[in-house]
Amino acid sequence: MRSSYQERLDRFAQDLIVMCDTVQVIMQQAAKALLAQDLTAAEQALTLTDDLKPITQRCEERAVQLLALEGPLARDLRQVVSSIYIVEDISRMATLAKHIATTARLRHPAQVLPEPLVGYFEEYSRLAQEMTQKLGDLLTDPDDVDVAVVFGADDDAVDDIQKHLFLLLTARPWEHSTTQAVDVALLSRYFERYADHIVNVASRIIYLSTGMKPAEYLANREAAQRGERFDDRLAALEHRLGIAPQPKPHNL
Amino acid sequence: MRSSYQERLDRFAQDLIVMCDTVQVIMQQAAKALLAQDLTAAEQALTLTDDLKPITQRCEERAVQLLALEGPLARDLRQVVSSIYIVEDISRMATLAKHIATTARLRHPAQVLPEPLVGYFEEYSRLAQEMTQKLGDLLTDPDDVDVAVVFGADDDAVDDIQKHLFLLLTARPWEHSTTQAVDVALLSRYFERYADHIVNVASRIIYLSTGMKPAEYLANREAAQRGERFDDRLAALEHRLGIAPQPKPHNL
Repeated sequence: MRSSYQERLDRFAQDLIVMCDTVQVIMQQAAKALLAQDLTAAEQALTLTDDLKPITQRCEERAVQLLALEGPLARDLRQVVSSIYIVEDISRMATLAKHIATTARLRHPAQVLPEPLVGYFEEYSRLAQEMTQKLGDLLTDPDDVDVAVVFGADDDAVDDIQKHLFLLLTARPWEHSTTQAVDVALLSRYFERYADHIVNVASRIIYLSTGMKPAEYLANREAAQRGERFDDRLAALEHRLGIAPQPKPHNL
Repeated sequence: MRSSYQERLDRFAQDLIVMCDTVQVIMQQAAKALLAQDLTAAEQALTLTDDLKPITQRCEERAVQLLALEGPLARDLRQVVSSIYIVEDISRMATLAKHIATTARLRHPAQVLPEPLVGYFEEYSRLAQEMTQKLGDLLTDPDDVDVAVVFGADDDAVDDIQKHLFLLLTARPWEHSTTQAVDVALLSRYFERYADHIVNVASRIIYLSTGMKPAEYLANREAAQRGERFDDRLAALEHRLGIAPQPKPHNL
């Protein structure tokens, strides 16, 4: 019984990885469509988003089936419930990437973005793809929670770009068309929400693996590191005073 | 055992109603802040959004506890899983209303919207509040699925406003500032996403109550009504030909 449960749980987890891999390609193609006015890439992003729907539905079904089985342990239950949220988040990521592709298609063959702003969106795109890649890694190896650090930093970088673009759009004279302003505002929001969903998923996985929220986990990890440094300094002092053996090498 | 399960399920359902009622006030205040440059209303919307967080967390906890209890029936399981999605949707609605309030606060004392566009946002606000009210009714009486019809029509109305505003922003000469264009584009998206989440929740409740997706339910209902009309006409005909008793009154 138990091993069949585990098997089903594994198949479910495998579906999440497939979903994440698919979204990664969707975002790749959407960003290509946006940055290189590539209509084929836009169409591919849209098609792939449709392909994702049956997997999403299958995941919802599997979650209910897993919950209907008798005797899952509390930890397994939490995993299934978390996975329900994760399916929802990844599916939203796909829709947001799809919106980016749709905007590129709508304006084709014109470039959506004003030339001086292209760099910001290249950076958005780079961050989105890197974060999705890392999310795939985390889904594959949920115990490797140290990626938590990276997600926080990446998300801050995304937020910084968004704040700066909003400032360019609203607080300074805008040299480009209103259509471009509207497109930039909405596209910027799509990228930012995309990153938010990745952070949501990562937080859930980290919570499952450690029982801690990411901020808590980081604070704990830092405290542990400070503790280690303190131990090292104490050992060095004791050594100087001749009351302890050679200190171990410093590992800052 | 079973009755204690039902009791917990009821408490959970009650929390969803409280969440929905709270979001209704948040949206009311946010819309007031936007349409009447009312700073106090904006602050109240922001405070209420913070107040909602502990209820949301309690709902997540309750869902896991309900699933951990032994022996829930398949229908109860589906109800809990649906409720997990519903919590997420209502909580997003609160955040979207909060964004509306934040925009109003950011531009205060200036009016966010260009004068000629105020009417569209009054309509957005009216629809959002009406839909939220009906959602509260549906959560209170989940078997009254005929509201499904109304949600579809309301959501179409919201989408129509959004399409029209997007056209005004991007396809016609824009007479107002770029900041106003950006604000209108983002606010419009917040209202549209807000309505989407309501439709999501309604769909889940209708599916739980009828086993059908809303479109399917509507098609079925229409077919049943056509069938009734056909029955009536047949009865009238039979009556005229003297082969049946007096037809029942027409109920179109």
